Amino acid sequence: MLGIGDDAAVTHLDVKSHLVIATDTIVAGTHFPEGTEAHAIGHRCLAVNLSDLAAMGAEPLWCTLALSLPEADPDWVAAFAEGFFALADKFDVALVGGDTVKGPLAITVTAHGRAASGKYIGRSGAESRQAIYVTGFPGEAAAGLQSLRAGDRTKTDNAAISRFLYPQPRVSEGQSLNGVATAMIDVSDGLQVDLQRLLSASCVGAKIDVGKIPIAPSMLELMDESRALELVVTGGDDYELCFTVPAERESDLDVMRPGWDCPVTRIGETRAGAEIRWAYNEQDFNVPDTSFRHF
Amino acid sequence: MLGIGDDAAVTHLDVKSHLVIATDTIVAGTHFPEGTEAHAIGHRCLAVNLSDLAAMGAEPLWCTLALSLPEADPDWVAAFAEGFFALADKFDVALVGGDTVKGPLAITVTAHGRAASGKYIGRSGAESRQAIYVTGFPGEAAAGLQSLRAGDRTKTDNAAISRFLYPQPRVSEGQSLNGVATAMIDVSDGLQVDLQRLLSASCVGAKIDVGKIPIAPSMLELMDESRALELVVTGGDDYELCFTVPAERESDLDVMRPGWDCPVTRIGETRAGAEIRWAYNEQDFNVPDTSFRHF
Repeated sequence: MLGIGDDAAVTHLDVKSHLVIATDTIVAGTHFPEGTEAHAIGHRCLAVNLSDLAAMGAEPLWCTLALSLPEADPDWVAAFAEGFFALADKFDVALVGGDTVKGPLAITVTAHGRAASGKYIGRSGAESRQAIYVTGFPGEAAAGLQSLRAGDRTKTDNAAISRFLYPQPRVSEGQSLNGVATAMIDVSDGLQVDLQRLLSASCVGAKIDVGKIPIAPSMLELMDESRALELVVTGGDDYELCFTVPAERESDLDVMRPGWDCPVTRIGETRAGAEIRWAYNEQDFNVPDTSFRHF
Repeated sequence: MLGIGDDAAVTHLDVKSHLVIATDTIVAGTHFPEGTEAHAIGHRCLAVNLSDLAAMGAEPLWCTLALSLPEADPDWVAAFAEGFFALADKFDVALVGGDTVKGPLAITVTAHGRAASGKYIGRSGAESRQAIYVTGFPGEAAAGLQSLRAGDRTKTDNAAISRFLYPQPRVSEGQSLNGVATAMIDVSDGLQVDLQRLLSASCVGAKIDVGKIPIAPSMLELMDESRALELVVTGGDDYELCFTVPAERESDLDVMRPGWDCPVTRIGETRAGAEIRWAYNEQDFNVPDTSFRHF
């Protein structure tokens, strides 16, 4: 109703909807390498928030953008805006307000979405003996980041690098899981860490079959299979969805998945108790302790 | 309905309300001096956003907090949280979500408020021949910042320093101006700059009588009257409200003001046209070009 240019934005929501609010900050040097293209940063700051809305099964509506910039560089800002709005337009997300300040390069987006009354997917709804699924190729973004950090831009045609630079929030997939998934999270810090969060919130354990998680072909161009498996389990920045589905709903998922933009793979099952067992060919798989640490 | 600990917060709003959304970032070294007490930073990051909601005449409801910190210092975080929640509790604002990341010290709060259907106060509603009012003592915060920057902490009992460190958002005053004020803005960058924004948005000019703007007693302890007047007109960080009132509503304001926490002063009138005349004792007053520049 009232957008950029006043003290605040004014919006309206129908009475049967919940407002779902996600906020995430990305900082140069922490969440993306210094020198990353402005276009990719514009994409990323919105993508990570749309991914949070997707993980709630919510429909994105609008967002605010708080941009801290070291200097007013019109070319940088134009490229940033292009990346930002390309993604915003794709999902019909309106930018309703924001703030631009002088400071170290950092961006906070607050994204707002809608869920029909009672229809959102938290982390805490999983029960034992439900299937665990993940979308996409976990670890691919981390492999791409590793290449970027090594300065290996000769491999820019490698899909892993674009997976890191342009994470694809699973917006429509997340919404379609309403009524199907019992719990969901987006994988931002790594499959092991984020799945652990979902399972802890739901008070269940799990058995995961690492051998079932697909390895992106791009990863095997960059590293051997054992290092790839490590990243599959621990690598962050994928912004894929990880969710649980009760047995009687798995056929619903089978009906939906041909229409999805990404693979979706059954990687294990929840179990009673708190133990999370990672197995590879029925042997214990030692999860390396290398996940993203916030501090 | 669902707060911190999931991918996003879930809230609900009744159908007769607008959702009003403000987002502001504060960065160390830009918006407050390096070394400012964590308690004051916690207060500030919320205060500047509540001030934006106040300037819309909206009632604050909840907020998200995105905190970028160079290191995980528990004492710092505890003091920050104390300052933040003291203000949040004062206005019954719930923290519904957020993000904590490693990076340069910067904080983005997105604050959400409610305005009854059609009842919010933008910047563009002023018409000619309406009275212009400002709350509080413009320039006092800038005088305090100047003292702080000069390292003049021997004067910490000076009210100007606490006015800078603890800006008081005019939350109840802003709401009570619904139906009274035709346009409103909060003074963050300086009275001259922000009043200019309101007048431009409303397509009117104004005559301002600088001699009518009250000078905070604390300012005259720190500087002579001519420098004080300069800060009254150009100094930022006050987070006072500046608004316009039609003649037939000025008596409503007179009824309300005894209940307010701050003085409110009639400083001029809007006029047809685009010219903004600043006068002091009927002489032209030259506004120094020293207002806060974002870049």
